[in-house]
Amino acid sequence: MKFDIIVLGSGPGGYVTAIRASQLGFKVAVVEKENLGGICLNWGCIPTKALLKSAQVFDYLKHASDYGLTISGEVDKDFNAVIARSRGVAEGMSKGVQFLMKKNKIEVIDGFGKVKPGKKVDVTKADGSVIELSADHIIIATGARSRELPNLPQDGKKVIGYRQAMTLAEQPKKMIVVGSGAIGVEFAHFYNSMGTEVTIVEFMPNIVPVEDEDISKQMERSLKKSGIKIMTNSSVEKVDTTGEGVKAFVKTAKGEEILEADVLLSAVGIKSNIENIGLEETGIATDRDKILVNDFYQTNIPGYYAIGDVVPGQALAHVASAEGILCVEKIAGLHVEPLDYGNIPGCTYATPEIASVGMTEKKAKEAGYEIKVGKFPFSASGKAKAAGTPDGFVKVIFDAKYGEWLGCHMIGAGVTDMIAEAVVARKLETTGHEILKAVHPHPTMSEAVMEAVAEAYGEVIHL
Amino acid sequence: MKFDIIVLGSGPGGYVTAIRASQLGFKVAVVEKENLGGICLNWGCIPTKALLKSAQVFDYLKHASDYGLTISGEVDKDFNAVIARSRGVAEGMSKGVQFLMKKNKIEVIDGFGKVKPGKKVDVTKADGSVIELSADHIIIATGARSRELPNLPQDGKKVIGYRQAMTLAEQPKKMIVVGSGAIGVEFAHFYNSMGTEVTIVEFMPNIVPVEDEDISKQMERSLKKSGIKIMTNSSVEKVDTTGEGVKAFVKTAKGEEILEADVLLSAVGIKSNIENIGLEETGIATDRDKILVNDFYQTNIPGYYAIGDVVPGQALAHVASAEGILCVEKIAGLHVEPLDYGNIPGCTYATPEIASVGMTEKKAKEAGYEIKVGKFPFSASGKAKAAGTPDGFVKVIFDAKYGEWLGCHMIGAGVTDMIAEAVVARKLETTGHEILKAVHPHPTMSEAVMEAVAEAYGEVIHL
Repeated sequence: MKFDIIVLGSGPGGYVTAIRASQLGFKVAVVEKENLGGICLNWGCIPTKALLKSAQVFDYLKHASDYGLTISGEVDKDFNAVIARSRGVAEGMSKGVQFLMKKNKIEVIDGFGKVKPGKKVDVTKADGSVIELSADHIIIATGARSRELPNLPQDGKKVIGYRQAMTLAEQPKKMIVVGSGAIGVEFAHFYNSMGTEVTIVEFMPNIVPVEDEDISKQMERSLKKSGIKIMTNSSVEKVDTTGEGVKAFVKTAKGEEILEADVLLSAVGIKSNIENIGLEETGIATDRDKILVNDFYQTNIPGYYAIGDVVPGQALAHVASAEGILCVEKIAGLHVEPLDYGNIPGCTYATPEIASVGMTEKKAKEAGYEIKVGKFPFSASGKAKAAGTPDGFVKVIFDAKYGEWLGCHMIGAGVTDMIAEAVVARKLETTGHEILKAVHPHPTMSEAVMEAVAEAYGEVIHL
Repeated sequence: MKFDIIVLGSGPGGYVTAIRASQLGFKVAVVEKENLGGICLNWGCIPTKALLKSAQVFDYLKHASDYGLTISGEVDKDFNAVIARSRGVAEGMSKGVQFLMKKNKIEVIDGFGKVKPGKKVDVTKADGSVIELSADHIIIATGARSRELPNLPQDGKKVIGYRQAMTLAEQPKKMIVVGSGAIGVEFAHFYNSMGTEVTIVEFMPNIVPVEDEDISKQMERSLKKSGIKIMTNSSVEKVDTTGEGVKAFVKTAKGEEILEADVLLSAVGIKSNIENIGLEETGIATDRDKILVNDFYQTNIPGYYAIGDVVPGQALAHVASAEGILCVEKIAGLHVEPLDYGNIPGCTYATPEIASVGMTEKKAKEAGYEIKVGKFPFSASGKAKAAGTPDGFVKVIFDAKYGEWLGCHMIGAGVTDMIAEAVVARKLETTGHEILKAVHPHPTMSEAVMEAVAEAYGEVIHL
């Protein structure tokens, strides 16, 4: 079968790319070895948000009296129902992608795709048979999986990755979470909310280590307050799964500590799916787990492209989608500009949420900027007070000389929906003054952005 | 006593003005007849948001099983505790303003202020004594109150305004809400959530009549689904409060209908507080309930200014604050630009929420624009599905010729915090293409903005 464009993988990189390609008039096929929607829809962004929503509502139930409400009996979670709801949401979304594929006349080919020289793709079907496809353009969007450390081999039962963590048949009483990036923190928060005793082990000095230090510290305070134990500057040297549960031997600044739990979640990053997909045979260049591409996602071999987690850049769903759209728009001959990787927002959906874009204070200083920093706590926000969510703050960083908005870092309720303002404003090359003079509605959490900017310029009102 | 600036009224217009003025080096006094923070903090924005938060949490309690959670007994509201929480939040905020006044060395003068010629203000104290103040600049920020219609005289018990509505000693079983602007809809939603039987009577063909028609229709569907009765094209001709409750005689397209309830809330707009504050004596010009001012809030009499609900323009807290800041910055000789009243967001905090800025589709057409309209429903949003909030949509309106973002209209969960993106982008003179290419984080409700813009330009992915 011959197509204009074949996309390998149907995650948020692949399926979005396919839809945009179809809109641009191309005849498109998507090759998928498992579920339409990839990790994001089936085992990542979406089902975790469903779990976290249950955790949020459970927290409301536990604190109903704070809002003047009464519950005569006991509140509890039905762990399996919580998991089932999450799976239901994921399945619904995957069906949604199926619908979108049909609507956009995209051929979905089940099987494992492997690129070959001559702009060909071999697809191995479930029954072992192989079909050959060809196209003018082949886009690799095979994504990534949970990274396995040599000293943390995942058995899928006692030492697990994010995939198992969202479908455990039984709720663990005790859990160790290794790694405190977005995935680690989200699961730690979820399981803690459900009543599991959770300990986070983080190698770096701060949790959520890619975030601004003030954010990390606030998150650590919040998680500790909610009952999660946190060990930073610590690493799991080895695990012992021979007993009933799992024993983790943790190296800390003070020496070795042994933690025991039912389950250990390894959330130490991801590993690109670039094995056995024909890169070597086709001569496609890679470097340190990533396929090398130019600004428009062309590999070194003409006609072959790569986007998403398999290429350098933030391994995030929205980055994959943006890259894919850009890639096919370029193929279609549209005028496109390279993606600005300095303006990609990142989110963590625990309680509180984290959302950030641009440089941290530390990075801005390291880059040699003279900076103006402003911070506004939600404890001074009327809306936050009324909503009972006074934890957290907005922190903004400006270049003192030209007023460029270098970074925006938020922690608090709903901030993952608020960061778009900063992304768009930065894209439009705003200055602080323009944010200050854009009238934010009262009373909203979003006023904190305006006030943080005001604080940076000595004009804050509510502090 | 002599000041640089005297501000009459300490609402979100007055107290913000005073703080900014103090920052700019002025010696400032604020005259307040009642509570610091004015209506907004004490009887408006803030306490209503507290009530609505209780309503939201109560809804979660009622639907706990949707999220995999169980409640063994009964859930209920303690109406008085809900009210008490709201009052507590308001009191806390008012104390916060007190702190801000002290911190900024602003003199707070209790009493009723009245301007006089010669840049003087008489303040009548609670004991009837009068003190005279003088200043170089006098700013009138006396705000507004609930408007009373001749056929709907408020007795504060059976026929009430928003003030009584947030402190009722007893929850009414039945309530009639006349008027379906933000205040009417918010109270209708709150009382309905609490279990009161609510009927909205609206004179116009659509509820929330200032909003885009699509928003109004969606809101009507949502409120009806939640159990609220809605009568549009209807008006209360008279009320009878002689019996046990209140009878409202409603003129509808089909003839007269008589509604009975315990309480009728009149939410038909506001009336400026411009009586007995010395405007006539001082010669300050007014027109149709508003003080006339220029772009920098100067009245016709030099040295006298007015901001907030007493001047033309949207009667909203954030407008009052912005006007006050601008007014004193101009007095201080800063370079300021007039406020763009076409870029003021408006919010309604019911479930779903409404947030909008700029022109409605109808207004844009009436203004002669050739337009591109895009719409994206939250039912197609992964985040909304995961959160269980698929109701609503984002609608965007662009000028087809130059790409100007004419209007943005949102209805759904959390949209009041999402509208800031549109406000800021419009201030920065964005085009649709720039919003489209600003990478919104996945999965968030904010993606719906990007997708709605994409829909306007034939590039939507998830529809």
